[in-house]
Amino acid sequence: MGKSGDDITALMLEAPQFNTLSQAELEILGKHIFRKNVSENTVLCEEGSSGDSLFYVVTGKIEIRKESIDGRQTVLARFNKGASVGEMSLIEHSPRSATATAIEDSELLILTRKSFDELIESEPLIGIKILKNIAKSLSTRLRYTSGRFADVFK
Amino acid sequence: MGKSGDDITALMLEAPQFNTLSQAELEILGKHIFRKNVSENTVLCEEGSSGDSLFYVVTGKIEIRKESIDGRQTVLARFNKGASVGEMSLIEHSPRSATATAIEDSELLILTRKSFDELIESEPLIGIKILKNIAKSLSTRLRYTSGRFADVFK
Repeated sequence: MGKSGDDITALMLEAPQFNTLSQAELEILGKHIFRKNVSENTVLCEEGSSGDSLFYVVTGKIEIRKESIDGRQTVLARFNKGASVGEMSLIEHSPRSATATAIEDSELLILTRKSFDELIESEPLIGIKILKNIAKSLSTRLRYTSGRFADVFK
Repeated sequence: MGKSGDDITALMLEAPQFNTLSQAELEILGKHIFRKNVSENTVLCEEGSSGDSLFYVVTGKIEIRKESIDGRQTVLARFNKGASVGEMSLIEHSPRSATATAIEDSELLILTRKSFDELIESEPLIGIKILKNIAKSLSTRLRYTSGRFADVFK
């Protein structure tokens, strides 16, 4: 499963957070990102724990579940190949509000907040491109979710 | 109306986009921001035109209106002292989806995209703080608007 190491920049280019980066910038970013193969039922991050990574799904499937007050598990979302989750972990330090589990054998690209902070220190302009992409993606989702405008004046 | 020029950093600190900046950073940012007094009924930006500024309301009131298909004007929002509008203009280049008008004599702080881009060039770490704040604010609004999670895994 997975492609050769040389393809990591091509994979990153598929992620909306990274798709405005140049080839040279993707190669720099690639040094801060790692690939990981996880088997079915691997818990990536638990509700209440400190979230600290963006996950990009190369192959496989990730399920997000939340425990309700009566202890029942509710599935909030499933993420397939090409989706990314946890991007706000790069920015906010609040605990995860849900649990993420691989429900198939999956291959992920992972960018931790620590790595992102190091990237910002050494290559702030790459950090700026990624943050602009995250804001654009949130703005689009806000427009979609609310049927209104992320920024009513935009 | 309005405070003395020395107070601009204190005013900026009230805006959620800037409230994580140090005093030294606020002073640098202050060179890229201008204050403007506008009289009642001044149109700040028209629907369909290219939006290019963040407006922070120091005093007064801004109304956002949109024309519906039948030509009627709908008021989408009113922004008072302490609110800011147009932040996505710093990031996206799409046309304004609504018209903004001062409905009282108002004092504004204005950061244009051009100035923001210059700031990013010269002081990228300040740009990063502002972009992180914009993302946090969008994420909070998304959580509020949807009653769910901006980022379901966060």
